[in-house]
Amino acid sequence: MIRRRGTLFVVSAPSGAGKTTLCREIRLRLHDLAYSVSVTTRPPRPGEIDGTDFRFVSEAQFRELLGRNELAEWATVHANLYGTPAEPLEAALKAGRDVLLDIDTQGALQLRARYPDAVLIFVVAPSMGELEQRLRERRSDSEREIARRLERAREEVMLWRRYDYLIVNRDVKEAMDQLESIIHAERCRVARLALTFPDLEVPN
Amino acid sequence: MIRRRGTLFVVSAPSGAGKTTLCREIRLRLHDLAYSVSVTTRPPRPGEIDGTDFRFVSEAQFRELLGRNELAEWATVHANLYGTPAEPLEAALKAGRDVLLDIDTQGALQLRARYPDAVLIFVVAPSMGELEQRLRERRSDSEREIARRLERAREEVMLWRRYDYLIVNRDVKEAMDQLESIIHAERCRVARLALTFPDLEVPN
Repeated sequence: MIRRRGTLFVVSAPSGAGKTTLCREIRLRLHDLAYSVSVTTRPPRPGEIDGTDFRFVSEAQFRELLGRNELAEWATVHANLYGTPAEPLEAALKAGRDVLLDIDTQGALQLRARYPDAVLIFVVAPSMGELEQRLRERRSDSEREIARRLERAREEVMLWRRYDYLIVNRDVKEAMDQLESIIHAERCRVARLALTFPDLEVPN
Repeated sequence: MIRRRGTLFVVSAPSGAGKTTLCREIRLRLHDLAYSVSVTTRPPRPGEIDGTDFRFVSEAQFRELLGRNELAEWATVHANLYGTPAEPLEAALKAGRDVLLDIDTQGALQLRARYPDAVLIFVVAPSMGELEQRLRERRSDSEREIARRLERAREEVMLWRRYDYLIVNRDVKEAMDQLESIIHAERCRVARLALTFPDLEVPN
C-alpha cells in the first residue's frame, strides 16, 4: 500500500489580519489537520497557554535549538524569535497527515525552499485603516508597538505574489470558508495525487 | 477600474461517473456561475429540454456551425457530434463571469490549448464495477451502448493526469463539496489574481 504523504499548508499575514483566529477556527472544522506549535521568545499574551499556543522559551534555549538544527524555519519578528520544531513537522507529514503552520513571511519563504510542494496562503485585512483599527481593538499593544506592526504590515503585504493563495479577510466566516476550500481543493489536485501515486494509471 | 476576466472551469468524466448531476447541482449552489449549453447531434433523452440541456441540431446544421468557425471545441462521442458555441463563452468570460463547461475529454484538451488558464476537473466513479452499475440503472442505453460506454471509459480514465483536479465520486454530496471548493479556491489563486491585476502591488 502506498502511503500518501501529508501536505504542508502555511498561513501568513501581517498582524491584525485575523490569521490567529482563522487558524484556530479551521482546526475546529478540520479535525484531521495536524498543527505545529511554534517556539518563541516573546512573552505570553493574556490567555495564551504554553505548549498550546506557543512553546515559550528563553533566548538562550532558542539559540540552543538553532545550534542543534532542530528548527525547520525561524525568524525575528518585532525583536522576538520564532521557530518551527522540525521533527514533529516531518513526522506528521510522513504519517500522511496534512499540517497547518501559522508563521510569518520570512519563515514561510524558508519553508517554500525546504518543501517546494507546500501550499502558501496569505491573509490580508481589507484595508490598512481596517488593520489599524483591529490592532487598536486588541488593546494588548502600546502605541509604539502598533506603529511598528503597521510599518511591518506595509512591507509584508508586498510579498503576496510569492504565495499561492490570497484571502482578503473582510468577514471571518467568508475567510474561513475560503481557507477550508483551499485545503479541500488541494487534496484533489492531480499534481499532488500523481506525486503520491506515481504508478497509478487508472484511478478506478 | 480593472475588470476581472472570468475563469473557465471544464468538467469531464466517463459517462456514468455522475458529471451531469454534479454540474446541474453546482449551478443551484453557485448562482454567479455561467453555464454553456452545448450543441449536439444526438437525440434528446427523456426529460431533456432543447436549449437548456443541449441545443439539439441535425448533422447538417452542426457542420454549418463548424464551417463558420462558431465552435470553441468539438468532438465525436459515440458517433454523435458535440460542440461548444464560441461567442457566448467568450462574452461571459469578458464580462468577468466564471463559466462551467461540461464536456468530454477531447473537447477539454482542445479548450486547454485555446484557454491555457482554464481549470480542468476530471470526475471518476470509485470503480469500473460501480460505473457499470450506474450505466445499467440509467436504463436509457442498450446492452451494446453500455459496452461501448464502458470501453470508452477505460480509455478516458487514462487521461486524468492531463487535468488539474481529480474528483472521485463516491458520494454525490462529497463530490459536490469538492467541486465547490475547487471553484472557491481557484478564485483565491495568486497566479489568477496577479494576471487580473498586473499593477496591484498592495492589495490592502
